[in-house]
Amino acid sequence: MTATANPTINALCEPTSAAWLEQALGNIDTILLDHSHCERKAASTAVNMMFRYPSNHKLVRQLTAIAQEELEHFEQVNQILERRGIPLAPLNAPPYGKGLMSQIRHQEPHRLLDSLLISGLIEARSHERLGLLGTHLPDPKLAAFYRSLMASEARHFGIYWLLADTYFDREIVQSRLAELAIFESQLLSTLYHEPRIHS
Amino acid sequence: MTATANPTINALCEPTSAAWLEQALGNIDTILLDHSHCERKAASTAVNMMFRYPSNHKLVRQLTAIAQEELEHFEQVNQILERRGIPLAPLNAPPYGKGLMSQIRHQEPHRLLDSLLISGLIEARSHERLGLLGTHLPDPKLAAFYRSLMASEARHFGIYWLLADTYFDREIVQSRLAELAIFESQLLSTLYHEPRIHS
Repeated sequence: MTATANPTINALCEPTSAAWLEQALGNIDTILLDHSHCERKAASTAVNMMFRYPSNHKLVRQLTAIAQEELEHFEQVNQILERRGIPLAPLNAPPYGKGLMSQIRHQEPHRLLDSLLISGLIEARSHERLGLLGTHLPDPKLAAFYRSLMASEARHFGIYWLLADTYFDREIVQSRLAELAIFESQLLSTLYHEPRIHS
Repeated sequence: MTATANPTINALCEPTSAAWLEQALGNIDTILLDHSHCERKAASTAVNMMFRYPSNHKLVRQLTAIAQEELEHFEQVNQILERRGIPLAPLNAPPYGKGLMSQIRHQEPHRLLDSLLISGLIEARSHERLGLLGTHLPDPKLAAFYRSLMASEARHFGIYWLLADTYFDREIVQSRLAELAIFESQLLSTLYHEPRIHS
């Protein structure tokens, strides 16, 4: 059973399960803390990708904008954590990120293509799940916060996709995205026992 | 001979030499490109430090602000590069950064203290050198740009110093800063043969 009537994100192979939403709504403090970590990781991923491809003007410019926005969200989530008295603490990561990274081929130009598409898929999944929180959270202020983030997560997916489309043939992009999307949905098919944005 | 009558940054042990200024003014396109790399590295350093100390609220908040500002400067320098037709290209790094990193002790809490103070010293040196460019560059627009960056570089030094002062006894901070400042000036005492912000 899928979680909701929210519109499905096209790139995603399977929608999020109702089980995830139930787990998330029942553990919102942990989800908020994990969300903070996710924003920091997303900023770091964008900055590191700029380091690996410092000569690609378009990539550098777009990833700079993404990193700035992720840091802004990071700061916003941290303010919410502070108001709720949730201390910033490390959280062990679910298998999702590591699992996706394992699909990045080591040789260029495959590495660039896979990195862009995997970052895009993570943004797409975040967009979907933050949207679910925005729809179903009983706290109206928190729900509004999550709805406010949705547009940028969707835009970030679009940027990663467009960058892939800039540097690679569309057919190659589409077929690799389809493969990775299947893998991404499989990673989430068993709910991780600890509540996470990507459990 | 030192470069100028600009006010000396207190933390720095020795002011920048006239030789550096001459090298920089004679190779401003390379300096601009290196400056772009420096801003990206500074953003990355701040983001990575947040990863290492995710539970220190104050550190995380302050470094988020620094990373955001560095990314903004990165974007500004990249726009200048684009207007001048200078392609974003990799540049081999001068020994400065690696030399400073070698002074970071591996054990905590020394590692945190050294990381903060070294980042602070790099910001202080950048403040000094960007100020020299702001004073001496013949192109008034470019000079104004460099002057506009000075305030934040100085503020960044202050933030790193205050963070060190938050987590460590002031005496320990001052004596370690003095040691590192001597080392930092020694690293710059021989001009690197390629023009760089930290040659």
